[in-house]
Amino acid sequence: METKTRIVSATFSADLHSKMSKEDMVMISNGENEISAQPDVTAEGKDKDSCDDLKHPRIPGWFAEHCPIWPGQAHFLKVEKILFQGSSKYQSMMVFQSSAYGKVFVLDGALQLTEKDECSYQEMMTHLPLCSIPNPKKVLLIGGGDGGILREISRHSSVEQIHICEIDTMLVDVYKQFFPDIAVGYDDPRVTLHVSDGIAFLVSNAGGNYDAIIVDAFDPIRPDHELFETSFFELVGNALRPGGVLCIQAESIWFDSLDIEKLVTKCRQVFRGSVEYAWTIVPAYPSGVIGFLLCSTEGSPVNFKSPINPIDPNVSYGVAKAPLKFYNSEVHSASFCLPSFAKKVINSKVGSTMNGVGTTATQMT
Amino acid sequence: METKTRIVSATFSADLHSKMSKEDMVMISNGENEISAQPDVTAEGKDKDSCDDLKHPRIPGWFAEHCPIWPGQAHFLKVEKILFQGSSKYQSMMVFQSSAYGKVFVLDGALQLTEKDECSYQEMMTHLPLCSIPNPKKVLLIGGGDGGILREISRHSSVEQIHICEIDTMLVDVYKQFFPDIAVGYDDPRVTLHVSDGIAFLVSNAGGNYDAIIVDAFDPIRPDHELFETSFFELVGNALRPGGVLCIQAESIWFDSLDIEKLVTKCRQVFRGSVEYAWTIVPAYPSGVIGFLLCSTEGSPVNFKSPINPIDPNVSYGVAKAPLKFYNSEVHSASFCLPSFAKKVINSKVGSTMNGVGTTATQMT
Repeated sequence: METKTRIVSATFSADLHSKMSKEDMVMISNGENEISAQPDVTAEGKDKDSCDDLKHPRIPGWFAEHCPIWPGQAHFLKVEKILFQGSSKYQSMMVFQSSAYGKVFVLDGALQLTEKDECSYQEMMTHLPLCSIPNPKKVLLIGGGDGGILREISRHSSVEQIHICEIDTMLVDVYKQFFPDIAVGYDDPRVTLHVSDGIAFLVSNAGGNYDAIIVDAFDPIRPDHELFETSFFELVGNALRPGGVLCIQAESIWFDSLDIEKLVTKCRQVFRGSVEYAWTIVPAYPSGVIGFLLCSTEGSPVNFKSPINPIDPNVSYGVAKAPLKFYNSEVHSASFCLPSFAKKVINSKVGSTMNGVGTTATQMT
Repeated sequence: METKTRIVSATFSADLHSKMSKEDMVMISNGENEISAQPDVTAEGKDKDSCDDLKHPRIPGWFAEHCPIWPGQAHFLKVEKILFQGSSKYQSMMVFQSSAYGKVFVLDGALQLTEKDECSYQEMMTHLPLCSIPNPKKVLLIGGGDGGILREISRHSSVEQIHICEIDTMLVDVYKQFFPDIAVGYDDPRVTLHVSDGIAFLVSNAGGNYDAIIVDAFDPIRPDHELFETSFFELVGNALRPGGVLCIQAESIWFDSLDIEKLVTKCRQVFRGSVEYAWTIVPAYPSGVIGFLLCSTEGSPVNFKSPINPIDPNVSYGVAKAPLKFYNSEVHSASFCLPSFAKKVINSKVGSTMNGVGTTATQMT
């Protein structure tokens, strides 16, 4: 769930920071990155100007998240203890113990993951693509340096190679120290970590023949992001085998200011198989839900809505230390059922050229 | 969505109140209730002591909601303008214009409804029961004085009588003034308003032969509520025809401190037909989701998961001025699909004696 630059700015009470002692902060170093412990958790130059009290409320002892894409609301979490603050050359990080959601990881001021509800995001993002195709063998994860998606991929016994492309090794180290049940994914011997920029990796892996690519690296809705381009999807498409699948984060259906329709259109231009939109609940995220785009290249038809590769909850495989908390085959299919207001926008773009699969549901009332 | 006493306490900045002018407040009177405009929106005697800064943060100009059942988090909405504040002999009310969710109605300090997402709650609570049975004719709503559920019942052409039992007429008047698109439900000529206590009404209507009863009057999870008793469900059961259905609000699956399992067990003791748990997303509510219990009396089997009485989105019937925003048949079925962590708790109680219907999904992985 990291290196995702969800466009959320953070305020974190200066009062709290001023009360912090060195003992409150646990610092780590991987020997490669500069680590700082600045009281300002907002990444340099980002959103500082907009953090006035009116637009961005602050409360001593509480962490606040609020979205410029849906202004006028803020979700606060009470901070029990700050466990880590630091910056790599790429981004700032904070880990704190919350009262309500367990440990929380914050990246450049944006809440990335909480122990309470990470199961929903990680499990859905992984198993929606991997349970939709038979016997996935070679899987690429771009971003996702926390290791949670690796942990979930690890549950699939058919998988032979798991490549992860994550540019920030400090982030990996912080997760390994503070979230061992999530970073446990790195313990799978099938995992190879490529410390690299995602695009550079994709460019060098055209024809990579991956069965599945999961992108947990940025918010594709963000209009000013360099990756919000058709060319990025083309790179992914070229790295997939025919009939291979992509899963990428696609924000909330409740943010009507976001142009999910446009994103779906771009995907349809590149992915000539299926393109579907799914969603799940993540209470700690703005609006409480987050979406995914599921796409397949031209090849064997993929019907994302009907999983053909179910995970048996009674059989444990891989490095995860507990069974699935959120995902099951019912929830898989249900995640593609959209409220009427979202269906109007999304399914009009999705349903037209789908290899003849998955259209039944869109024709229902 | 009102007279529901969700156990949420509110803080509303004293600073904001002190800045309020008379012009900011629009007062109404129905001639029956005492109306006050106290700066303290917390109902008398409720939660005042616990509203210290640490537990219950406040921000000038923002409305805060936070749950004792899930402490350490708070959801803030920016207030553009307070439109109404007052108290009936039963409860305090506030209406404000928010930046993010449109107009918001607050009852005894708890957020009840926002224009942005009321569609989800009202549509699901109504159509989950009414679309699960053929030709509902006689429907009772307990609580729900805002009129939104009436508006939704009104879409069903088979319905001949709509009874609503709401004790607080001031609340009805406030909704009629500030939320005309919701209170429009009262315009349906099939509606009869009974100004009465819900239990008294049920006692006097044993053998009422209702096809469906919708209870939008209180939070059944709240352990100290007088209605949190098997006897209440027995009263509902006695007012329903054989095979008649109940829909009642049942909080969020994410609140693991709540004993949904116990509630399901109580329902199973009374309702010898089906008992199912469904949920929907309501971003303005704590955790972003809310649950419903669907129960049927012994009689014609009811399979809540497969609607047999679909609403045609292309045909407009009744007093609603716009088509459905949220509900459709897909979302109906999907709402019964539970995350694995919730399934373990709820379906173990639900699946055992269900007239042989609706068990397929619970057997899936």
